[in-house]
Amino acid sequence: MSESPAPYRRRRGGDLSVTAIAELAGVSAPTVSKVLNGRAGISEETRRRVEALLRDHGFRKSTPARSTRHLEVVFHGMLSSIAMEVMRGIEVVATAQEMTFGYLEVLRRAKTGPLWVDALLIRQPAAVIAVSSAITAEHRETLMANGIPLVALDPTSDLLSTVSVGSTNWSGALNATRHLLDLGHRRIGVLSGPAKDLSARARLDGVRAAMDAAGVPFDKQLLRNGLFSFEQGRDLALQLLRRSEPPTAVVCGNDLQALGVYEAARLAGLRIPEQLSVVGFDDVEQAAWCAPPLTTVRQPFAAMGAAAAEFAVALAAGQTPKQTRVELATTLVVRGSTAPPA
Amino acid sequence: MSESPAPYRRRRGGDLSVTAIAELAGVSAPTVSKVLNGRAGISEETRRRVEALLRDHGFRKSTPARSTRHLEVVFHGMLSSIAMEVMRGIEVVATAQEMTFGYLEVLRRAKTGPLWVDALLIRQPAAVIAVSSAITAEHRETLMANGIPLVALDPTSDLLSTVSVGSTNWSGALNATRHLLDLGHRRIGVLSGPAKDLSARARLDGVRAAMDAAGVPFDKQLLRNGLFSFEQGRDLALQLLRRSEPPTAVVCGNDLQALGVYEAARLAGLRIPEQLSVVGFDDVEQAAWCAPPLTTVRQPFAAMGAAAAEFAVALAAGQTPKQTRVELATTLVVRGSTAPPA
Repeated sequence: MSESPAPYRRRRGGDLSVTAIAELAGVSAPTVSKVLNGRAGISEETRRRVEALLRDHGFRKSTPARSTRHLEVVFHGMLSSIAMEVMRGIEVVATAQEMTFGYLEVLRRAKTGPLWVDALLIRQPAAVIAVSSAITAEHRETLMANGIPLVALDPTSDLLSTVSVGSTNWSGALNATRHLLDLGHRRIGVLSGPAKDLSARARLDGVRAAMDAAGVPFDKQLLRNGLFSFEQGRDLALQLLRRSEPPTAVVCGNDLQALGVYEAARLAGLRIPEQLSVVGFDDVEQAAWCAPPLTTVRQPFAAMGAAAAEFAVALAAGQTPKQTRVELATTLVVRGSTAPPA
Repeated sequence: MSESPAPYRRRRGGDLSVTAIAELAGVSAPTVSKVLNGRAGISEETRRRVEALLRDHGFRKSTPARSTRHLEVVFHGMLSSIAMEVMRGIEVVATAQEMTFGYLEVLRRAKTGPLWVDALLIRQPAAVIAVSSAITAEHRETLMANGIPLVALDPTSDLLSTVSVGSTNWSGALNATRHLLDLGHRRIGVLSGPAKDLSARARLDGVRAAMDAAGVPFDKQLLRNGLFSFEQGRDLALQLLRRSEPPTAVVCGNDLQALGVYEAARLAGLRIPEQLSVVGFDDVEQAAWCAPPLTTVRQPFAAMGAAAAEFAVALAAGQTPKQTRVELATTLVVRGSTAPPA
């Protein structure tokens, strides 16, 4: 990490948005954001022009080390067992730094309360960690304009130049599918997450890569896209199981979909793993508490939380991370839901 | 809520424990605690004598409204989905008060880190909410001596005069058992939590009350006590299912035990609910994601968290709650795991 110029904060009542500043300066909004956050990659002349406008319109430089010792974690409708693991990791880092941290649930707040970014501004955290969030450029700009650094954990969409932490989704799905192929499965159903979700796409690509490598043709008829939910897992799996040639195994976008496949198998009168193998993704705590316990791909959520917190602490201290993206390894956990095909 | 005298805090390096102060004053430790926390119920003369000793030994009065706007929530190995619900409730109250809050996981810390109470003292929270904790009198005394109020949510043991929040465990178990009786079950197996756990005891009493009221004799051979875990649920249920006259239904101490019963049923080749009915307790999020979805007794964890947070905010502001115990209602949620006996 190296020192960088102090970032800016908007004074209360600052009169223009970043977009407006960008228009006045004749540059793009991301360029203004770079100046606000003290990032490299802009000419000195542009930086001076933007800085002058920022000063004129109520932005001021903040001290690089913020006075607050508080991190905020923003969850976007996250499964509890994942959220708690992430927070366990964050806790270790925050405690070592004698920082407190809290969390904010965006999905609920979006429906019931004030804008979540406004809530964060009131609390003035040293940094924000957004987990699995569809955080928008506007949210990010508001945080930046207030000198609050942002770290994304497993973002669902690409955020230009945002520091982020993820896991090796592609390799994880590759290994899970290879496990089914090694057991002898050839008709493998695939439940995938939302088509636009980056992690879901990486996992689907991993499944296809494993099948290509094994010379097993990928049958598009056995692929279904849906939400990462129990209900979609159940309904999409029922579609697959009712085919004249049903799959002998289903690889799922996440564990929740896999639990839905269990219910589909029950409704279809099929025993797992004797008549249907199932693989999940995540290894949430309930994966071990299924009947039978679920074979799945483990994401190291606590370590991902810790890595995100380390980024957040560094950014809050005014440091510039040497790398802006870390991916931690996934591992296949073989339990009782996979067996050779009947 | 009414104003009370300002509580005390021990100065760094205060030279005597509360127990020692009590000995010197010729009173009990709880009496000293009452003085420390500005509680009523002591004679003016005793209060003066204790206060003089406290002053002499490095305790000082703190301002009633602490400078920190931070609540700490302490979990004692809590299931993630319960912990997150509790925190959702706390979040609503904390946010309305413009307070931040964080959480501490005691089980892990007890093994790896410094004493958790010490960690809390460093953070100097306005109040502490302990969830399902076996908090000791010593922990409590340390917090009190530092002027940090404590609220217990679903405490596993009786804490003299600690403000606490719970749910109607007895009525919940009564309703769950009545549901099974109404379906026609007579041989009802009972998995209960640890014998010393207060909530577990209240639930077991509720089961027995329902059976007594229905004139169905309670068969002690069908009762098993164990930890609130998947593994114990599975193992204890297998003992019951292997009997020559197995139960036709099992009522469980919590949902995790119920998930273990699902696995026991799978291992015994029994279908739920056709050949075995199962009822849980808690309604954690995964209860709806079972095959079949679990009939269970819902505890209002978010509302319990909010109630605990309201107590904590009031105590932190130096107010004395009018009642020191609140129990919120449980409700039976009927899903797919219960049916008439075969």
